[in-house]
Amino acid sequence: MSTSSPSPRRVAIVGATGAVGREMVDVLHRRSFPVAELGLFASERSAGRTVETPFGEKTLVAFDVEKVKGYDIVLLAVSGDFAKEHAPAIAAGGALVIDNSSAFRYDDNVPLIVPEINAHAMGDAKLVANPNCTTAIAVVALGPLHKAFGLRRVIVSTYQATSGAGAEGMAELEEQTRNQLDGKPVVNSVFRHPIPFNLIPQIDAFQENGYTKEEMKVTWETRKILEIPDLPVSCTAVRIPTYRAHSEAITVETLSPVTPDAARAVLADAPGVVVKDVPADGVYPMPLNATGQFDVEVGRIRTSLIFGDHGLDLFVCGDQLLKGAALNAVQIAELSLN
Amino acid sequence: MSTSSPSPRRVAIVGATGAVGREMVDVLHRRSFPVAELGLFASERSAGRTVETPFGEKTLVAFDVEKVKGYDIVLLAVSGDFAKEHAPAIAAGGALVIDNSSAFRYDDNVPLIVPEINAHAMGDAKLVANPNCTTAIAVVALGPLHKAFGLRRVIVSTYQATSGAGAEGMAELEEQTRNQLDGKPVVNSVFRHPIPFNLIPQIDAFQENGYTKEEMKVTWETRKILEIPDLPVSCTAVRIPTYRAHSEAITVETLSPVTPDAARAVLADAPGVVVKDVPADGVYPMPLNATGQFDVEVGRIRTSLIFGDHGLDLFVCGDQLLKGAALNAVQIAELSLN
Repeated sequence: MSTSSPSPRRVAIVGATGAVGREMVDVLHRRSFPVAELGLFASERSAGRTVETPFGEKTLVAFDVEKVKGYDIVLLAVSGDFAKEHAPAIAAGGALVIDNSSAFRYDDNVPLIVPEINAHAMGDAKLVANPNCTTAIAVVALGPLHKAFGLRRVIVSTYQATSGAGAEGMAELEEQTRNQLDGKPVVNSVFRHPIPFNLIPQIDAFQENGYTKEEMKVTWETRKILEIPDLPVSCTAVRIPTYRAHSEAITVETLSPVTPDAARAVLADAPGVVVKDVPADGVYPMPLNATGQFDVEVGRIRTSLIFGDHGLDLFVCGDQLLKGAALNAVQIAELSLN
Repeated sequence: MSTSSPSPRRVAIVGATGAVGREMVDVLHRRSFPVAELGLFASERSAGRTVETPFGEKTLVAFDVEKVKGYDIVLLAVSGDFAKEHAPAIAAGGALVIDNSSAFRYDDNVPLIVPEINAHAMGDAKLVANPNCTTAIAVVALGPLHKAFGLRRVIVSTYQATSGAGAEGMAELEEQTRNQLDGKPVVNSVFRHPIPFNLIPQIDAFQENGYTKEEMKVTWETRKILEIPDLPVSCTAVRIPTYRAHSEAITVETLSPVTPDAARAVLADAPGVVVKDVPADGVYPMPLNATGQFDVEVGRIRTSLIFGDHGLDLFVCGDQLLKGAALNAVQIAELSLN
C-alpha cells in the first residue's frame, strides 16, 4: 500500500435519486473518498433537477452508457435487469463497476465482496458485485467466527426494515402508520400486505423449494463470501415495521468448541463490528441505535441450547442502506485505491 | 362424556381489568361457556366501577380470598407473586384455579395444560397452570408434528407483540408511535427502550446463561407440555412494534423423515391450528389476520436446509391474548365440564 494519498477518482452513481444512491453520495463524503468529480445519473424523468449534496449542488444527468464510461468508478444502484444490460459494457470501457443488484452475484467470474471478509477475492476485477443487505450484515460477524471456530451450520431469522424496498417502502410505512392511527383506510402498494403494526414473512418471490429468493440469497451469498461452498445455511426472512436497520437472530454450529467469551473477544477485534453485549444494562443490538451507523452491532452472544459447546446464538443489527448497501459499495471502491 | 348439557358454573376472574382478564370475559361468551354467575375481581382502586360485558353490566369487586373461594372456577390473570400467595388457598377451598402466571408452571405437582396437546395431564387437579403465550402458540403446531414425526431439536425466533406487556404495552406503542410521527419526544416506561419503529431483543429478565426468562420459558414449558424432558429447545425472544399477535420462526429437526406435504396434512387435522400456506398467493401467517382469531396460523412450511429430510422450517402466528392467554385458560376450564 502506498503511503501517499491516492489520486482522486471520477465517480459516477447510477440510480442517484433512490434511497441507496443518495446514501452512496453521503458515504463517499463521510469516508473522505477522494472524489475528483461526481456524476449523478438518473432516469430521464429526474434529469435536469438539481440536488444538494455534501459535494455541493449537483444536476442529475439522464443515464447514458457512453457518458458513464468516462468515469473511473461507477456505483450502480439500479435494478438487476438494468445492471445486466449495461454493467458489462461500462466495465469493458475501463471503469470499475460496483453493482448493488443481484444480477452478477452468482457469476463465478464476478467477485462478491464484503471488504472486511474477502477483499482478497477482488483481484483486478472491473465488475464487482455488492451483496444482499441481509448477507452483508450477517457475514461481518460470521466471517471472524468462521476463521476462529469454523462454521458447520447457520440458521438465520431476520427482522428486516422497509428500506429494503427503497424510499417508497419507508414512505409507505410512515404514511400508512399515520392512516391507521388516524382511523383512515390503510392501503399497500409497495408491500404485498399492509405493513403498519404487522409483519410480512415474505421478501422477494418464492422459489420452488418454498424459500423466498431473499432467503436463498442469504444461503448462496454467505457460502460464496465465506468460501464454504457447501455450508448449510437456512434463513427465514421477515419484513417488520421498522425504517432502515435490519436485525437477525443467528444460530451457528461450529467445528471447534466455542464460548461466548471467546466469541466476544474475536468479534471485538473484528473490523466493521461493534460488540453491544451487556444485556443486564439493556445493551444489545437494536435498530434504534444501529441506524445511521457504519458498524454492525453484535450482541446477545450465548451458548446454543441446541449445539452446546459447539454452538452460539447471537443477534446482529446493521443499517440496511449503509453496510447493507451504500457503505459496502464504497468500501469496495476504496479497495481499488490501494 | 355425557350428552346432556353441562351444569352452569360460577366463574370468577381475578385481574378482570387487565388485557387478559377482559379477554377472558369475552372468550367465555364467544365459546358459550355455561356461566351461572360471573364475578369480576380487581384491585381496591377499581372496585365499585361498573363495566359493560357480553354478560351484561357488572360491578368490579375488590379481591377477597374468601369471596373468591365461593366460585366453581377461578381464572387468575394476576402477577406470579399474587398467584403464589393466593392460588393454593383458593384451590384448597374447592374451586378449580387456572393461573395465567408462571408461578406454578414448573411445579411437578401442577399440570401445565394446552388442551389440544396434553389434556390427559390435567387429571383431577384443582390448580392448573396456563402456559407462557409464546409456548402455547408454538406447541399447538409442535405437538402434532412431534406425534407424527418425533421432535429431536427445536429452534425458535419470536416476533412478539406489545400485548405481552399488557394493555399498557399496547397503549405505549400507539401513543409513542403517534409522538414519533408528530416529531414529539418519544418516551418509554413500559418497555426498556422506545418501541415505535424499533425492536427490543429482550423480554423479561436475563438469566445466568445469557437467555432471558421468556426464552427459557419456551424451553422449559415446551418440554413439560410435550412430555420430552430433555428436548433441546432454543429461543430468541424479540419484541416488535405490533399489537397483539405473536409470530415465531421455527426450525425443527425430526426423528423420522418428514416432507412439507406430510406436515401440512398433519397440521390440517390438528385442533387449534389453521394452515395458511399458499405462499404464491401471499397466504401465510401474519398478525394482521391472526389477531382476534382462536386458531394459530401455521405456514411457510418447507424442508429445512439444515436438517434436510429430517427437518422443517415453519412460521406460526397466534393471538397473544387468546391462545396465548385467555382462550387457553377457558379451554382448560372447559375440560372440567366433562
